[in-house]
Amino acid sequence: MGIGVGLIGTGYMGKCHALAWNAVAPVFGDVERPRLAVLAEATAELAQRKAGEFGFARATADWRSLVEDPAVDVVSITTPNKFHAEMAISALRAGKHVWCEKPMATSLADAQAMHAAWKASGRHAVLGYNYVQNPAMRLIHRLVGEGAVGTVNHVRVEMDEDFMADASAPFSIRSEASSGYGALDDFAVHPLSLLRAVFGGVERVFGDMTRPYAERPVSGGGTRAVENYDTATALIRLDNGASGFIAVNRAAWGRKGRIQLQIFGSEGTLAFEQERFNEVQLFTRGDARETQGFRTILSGPAHPPYDRFIPAPGHGLGFNDLKVIECRELIGKIRGEASTLLDFDDGLAIERTVHAIARSFETGGWVKVDSVTA
Amino acid sequence: MGIGVGLIGTGYMGKCHALAWNAVAPVFGDVERPRLAVLAEATAELAQRKAGEFGFARATADWRSLVEDPAVDVVSITTPNKFHAEMAISALRAGKHVWCEKPMATSLADAQAMHAAWKASGRHAVLGYNYVQNPAMRLIHRLVGEGAVGTVNHVRVEMDEDFMADASAPFSIRSEASSGYGALDDFAVHPLSLLRAVFGGVERVFGDMTRPYAERPVSGGGTRAVENYDTATALIRLDNGASGFIAVNRAAWGRKGRIQLQIFGSEGTLAFEQERFNEVQLFTRGDARETQGFRTILSGPAHPPYDRFIPAPGHGLGFNDLKVIECRELIGKIRGEASTLLDFDDGLAIERTVHAIARSFETGGWVKVDSVTA
Amino acid sequence: MGIGVGLIGTGYMGKCHALAWNAVAPVFGDVERPRLAVLAEATAELAQRKAGEFGFARATADWRSLVEDPAVDVVSITTPNKFHAEMAISALRAGKHVWCEKPMATSLADAQAMHAAWKASGRHAVLGYNYVQNPAMRLIHRLVGEGAVGTVNHVRVEMDEDFMADASAPFSIRSEASSGYGALDDFAVHPLSLLRAVFGGVERVFGDMTRPYAERPVSGGGTRAVENYDTATALIRLDNGASGFIAVNRAAWGRKGRIQLQIFGSEGTLAFEQERFNEVQLFTRGDARETQGFRTILSGPAHPPYDRFIPAPGHGLGFNDLKVIECRELIGKIRGEASTLLDFDDGLAIERTVHAIARSFETGGWVKVDSVTA
Amino acid sequence: MGIGVGLIGTGYMGKCHALAWNAVAPVFGDVERPRLAVLAEATAELAQRKAGEFGFARATADWRSLVEDPAVDVVSITTPNKFHAEMAISALRAGKHVWCEKPMATSLADAQAMHAAWKASGRHAVLGYNYVQNPAMRLIHRLVGEGAVGTVNHVRVEMDEDFMADASAPFSIRSEASSGYGALDDFAVHPLSLLRAVFGGVERVFGDMTRPYAERPVSGGGTRAVENYDTATALIRLDNGASGFIAVNRAAWGRKGRIQLQIFGSEGTLAFEQERFNEVQLFTRGDARETQGFRTILSGPAHPPYDRFIPAPGHGLGFNDLKVIECRELIGKIRGEASTLLDFDDGLAIERTVHAIARSFETGGWVKVDSVTA
Repeated sequence: MGIGVGLIGTGYMGKCHALAWNAVAPVFGDVERPRLAVLAEATAELAQRKAGEFGFARATADWRSLVEDPAVDVVSITTPNKFHAEMAISALRAGKHVWCEKPMATSLADAQAMHAAWKASGRHAVLGYNYVQNPAMRLIHRLVGEGAVGTVNHVRVEMDEDFMADASAPFSIRSEASSGYGALDDFAVHPLSLLRAVFGGVERVFGDMTRPYAERPVSGGGTRAVENYDTATALIRLDNGASGFIAVNRAAWGRKGRIQLQIFGSEGTLAFEQERFNEVQLFTRGDARETQGFRTILSGPAHPPYDRFIPAPGHGLGFNDLKVIECRELIGKIRGEASTLLDFDDGLAIERTVHAIARSFETGGWVKVDSVTA
Repeated sequence: MGIGVGLIGTGYMGKCHALAWNAVAPVFGDVERPRLAVLAEATAELAQRKAGEFGFARATADWRSLVEDPAVDVVSITTPNKFHAEMAISALRAGKHVWCEKPMATSLADAQAMHAAWKASGRHAVLGYNYVQNPAMRLIHRLVGEGAVGTVNHVRVEMDEDFMADASAPFSIRSEASSGYGALDDFAVHPLSLLRAVFGGVERVFGDMTRPYAERPVSGGGTRAVENYDTATALIRLDNGASGFIAVNRAAWGRKGRIQLQIFGSEGTLAFEQERFNEVQLFTRGDARETQGFRTILSGPAHPPYDRFIPAPGHGLGFNDLKVIECRELIGKIRGEASTLLDFDDGLAIERTVHAIARSFETGGWVKVDSVTA
Repeated sequence: MGIGVGLIGTGYMGKCHALAWNAVAPVFGDVERPRLAVLAEATAELAQRKAGEFGFARATADWRSLVEDPAVDVVSITTPNKFHAEMAISALRAGKHVWCEKPMATSLADAQAMHAAWKASGRHAVLGYNYVQNPAMRLIHRLVGEGAVGTVNHVRVEMDEDFMADASAPFSIRSEASSGYGALDDFAVHPLSLLRAVFGGVERVFGDMTRPYAERPVSGGGTRAVENYDTATALIRLDNGASGFIAVNRAAWGRKGRIQLQIFGSEGTLAFEQERFNEVQLFTRGDARETQGFRTILSGPAHPPYDRFIPAPGHGLGFNDLKVIECRELIGKIRGEASTLLDFDDGLAIERTVHAIARSFETGGWVKVDSVTA
Repeated sequence: MGIGVGLIGTGYMGKCHALAWNAVAPVFGDVERPRLAVLAEATAELAQRKAGEFGFARATADWRSLVEDPAVDVVSITTPNKFHAEMAISALRAGKHVWCEKPMATSLADAQAMHAAWKASGRHAVLGYNYVQNPAMRLIHRLVGEGAVGTVNHVRVEMDEDFMADASAPFSIRSEASSGYGALDDFAVHPLSLLRAVFGGVERVFGDMTRPYAERPVSGGGTRAVENYDTATALIRLDNGASGFIAVNRAAWGRKGRIQLQIFGSEGTLAFEQERFNEVQLFTRGDARETQGFRTILSGPAHPPYDRFIPAPGHGLGFNDLKVIECRELIGKIRGEASTLLDFDDGLAIERTVHAIARSFETGGWVKVDSVTA
């Protein structure tokens, strides 16, 4: 009998979790098909409709009944970020495992409370940092671990999209201070999740943020001042002394899903670009001088668990497939296997780094990540 | 109540169909969740296990009982190619719709019989040419139709992989004449499916085939002569007079899932590479001279039905997602919507072209596709 | 005292030769600075002006006086193709070495006569196939020779530009039958020169040619039928049995200087694209399975004679630099060094292949290159 | 009668100047062929040999006699950086124009003295920032100026090579504090020159520097501590308020001549990569949503002065060609034409920015560039 699943939310990430719960058994062939027990949405009507589409047995407009339902072993939390803390804490207190979408929370205090609830629960609590699950990223992780590029001394990560690039787009909640710092919240957690997975901690940061557009039009005429920042840049030092930077921009015309990662080491270099996320670039000094160059490694069966999806190399996984891998990792973790998931320890460290960058922007000097608390 | 599904086969393509049937309702949100009725495999034990993983209600080792089952409306045929004809004909005669994996059949006579059975059935019969369903390919299709590159006058398609590239790999059934022409069968149907979808027919062909390795080792020592061809090349003329070529190579080291398509027209050029299948390259003469260049168009919500999978552009569909689109097209076709699927008319035309190339290779001259029959 | 140079013609290729003669001593540092003796142009005035710019001592409107001038040791022939034969033959008869731009001649009879004059002369006669001199191409040559990709079994070459792509451009001499076959003459010699340099001979060909635009506008209104072909495609077999094709298109919108070369062998694959001509793509099966991929090798000092131009790798040679290398090769050849130049033997073989493709197009069957004579 | 040239130094940059002085008249066809008057090197013998190769009339081991020679109008200074100040100041005082290689000087005090000498001289004094002369870079400059990407709000520049990447390479003068900050001096001037050319000034900086290898082996055994920094990163703010960063790394395995430039504006994005320096990437929001994407613009005749080198697009200029363009700009500047050259005003601003980054690294806070003096 497979694990009992409760899903809260049916927006994009809710759909993504639902697809993963449906696909995990066929794809991997080594786990029981999960029982899709309860789906919660804002209204009973929407919950009912989505339960039908997604294959869930019961629908409810009361997420609290979901987290209490004995048929539920694990709760997928895919609601807007501001609800994460209350839902995750409730679920953990009810003895459920938690699979919560990123970012962890909208305040550091919330993240700390979630972390405390997790520590007290004896359950598993993981975050949906799906980029980490990409077989290409796992290859990078493994190559770094095996010393393929030697000792890493410099790391660069950029993340850019263009959904805030249109200066004529009306002022929205995304530009309100109440929604957070801006690009720093929206994006920086992704680069930080990759750094976390591969390298562990960030020791200190120095950040800057800017508003490409000081104001935006409001419907009915006139404009309203933008309250947060569409770009953020930060110099970083990792725990191991490596230098580097993170740069994020949500007003970057033409960038659609760009995460450019460059890792420089004493024996070679690794590069990765999320817009071509079935490829890894590797340079190793070991190649002969006249034929050395960056290799474009196409994801394939040599890069598990790609092989569970497609037996032939070079055919390409999709973004939604990463959530299926994450789902398999979670099932494995619950049954005691090692996993590559980022848990609430990792999540809290990522949140601390985000707030450290913001604090540095205010103070104009380096901020040590460890020094940041709510 | 969703459509009733019978699935024959649980190899890679069987899994792919199963994932599609599981995902189509959550992804699209506009079709009822299909009823996964019956799964057939070679043994009852395997059928039972896979039915559990894939979510099918009933399992059987008797595919004939599946095609006769009243709970089944449509039959997914994903078995080895040599079984396609018998199964498809049986299913059509039993009044079921058929979704058959490519290639259609292992002989032209079989393909003709399948075609006849379909014509007599009043049911839908389509082939799993999934590359056609790629939103990027649909964009190409639409751009060509809208005249974005003007009148097309020259087309080139290459398809290459390297699973036969290792000269030291032991002789296998793939090198036996009984398995077909070689690369021509394995690969050429894919380029031909793309040409079929976008341009319609191929008028005539001139083909060549070669054996990169004349013999291969056999276990126990010694070698055995290779009986078919790992490369095939063909000059082509389309019905509209455009020239071009098809080149396929299954011994092409380093090519993993390459399908390179180039379409030249009077107003511009389109290019596509399957190894980066979320990208289309477009050049249009209309751009200013100093800023003209090939545009790398990343698949996104502007390219339906990408939007049903992911709301943000540039995040990337995967190879398996194409089968979900195909599944949605099939459901739509059954309920009377227009579709982009290739049916048994298209499939037969593709088979004829394959055999025309082989015939041309034997005769050393051009062969008209229309002239080829079993 | 450096070699004495005569230059006939000051169009683009004339300028290119002049730059090479000026640069060869500073770049290489191992040859005496050539004496720029005589420059010939159509008029005395133009000859005088260009001699001043190019640094030539004497100017003349009489190319015959140039080839007879005792101060001249080698004659650069850069005039329109139809003059090549007469000038080259005259120069050889006058005891001069000849450096003639490609293509060799406008008829096979002329090429044969030039070849005969060369054989009778005891002098050196080479053709300006500069692409062969690219350090990246030399690397390919060397890697093939060393067996880096094993036994080559399949080769593909495409060459495309778009200067004839505009259907509304007025009819010009380029579309007249008197100017030759069209793309086949303009372009195919370049792919053939690369094949010649790396592989030696082409054994047989099967060709096709098309007219993207059947007619073109003439000034004053109306149109005129196009008399030759803007595309040509040919299946080929090399002397060693390898298969492949050549495809050329001078009406390929967006292609500016594209020469795409793919070489498949039993141990790996090489690829090259002229639009990025400081890069070679190499895949070798020897790399570990999980990190194998095409390497992008950037030209650098490890690829002679790049080092004579720039001491740092990855900085990029330019198209005109290739002529400087060719110039150095010529000086070396004259003083008895081994060279990579294509001489009149090679040139005649290339011309024969071009005519074989045209003949094949007429006859609809394979044509053996050796069988073609004027 | 062309301009009279004196050349000091015959290393790589000396050769590059010599090639430019030889090529400028043939390439451009609109300037008189320069008189190559005097060449100075460290020894009379070397000077004599190089004068022969480079085509100079007179050779000397006394650079002071060169700057005083009445046959010399302009002095090319291509010696090691530490000699720039003395030579440039002497030449300017002698009434010569100065073409000095970058960086300007090894100390800010020297740069200021050179600047003062220039202001007092009434002559032209320019720096050899050749990347600025790339037609692709000029296109970027022009597109930014014309508003093709709207108001620029974010800029990123990376420059990486790997000549210091080998940890086992022996300690050299490059790692001594006396040779400067390290990567910051070697590389940052190039990104800064591009920013200077396109945007004008940098307002403030925040920098970091690291040592990938704390010590390096010395011959005879043992190691020596590295005294400067192989990486440097800096957050920047431009005068117009745009944010961004500069990152340089001379220990970046696999990077050979990488300068990655990204310019984000309110209407689009420009990107450029020096390792493919005949290409510009442009995204403009004006393209239709379904066909928008980054365009790869290949340099061609539409991008002057490419057309003076090659009449056909896409054939590729080389790194050394940029110096020829610079040479033509200098001749034009001397005869009163507008130019794109960076003069000693620009050079001093660049030097100030370099020192501002270093100062910021020491103080741990932002440094305003204007505040920095020797």
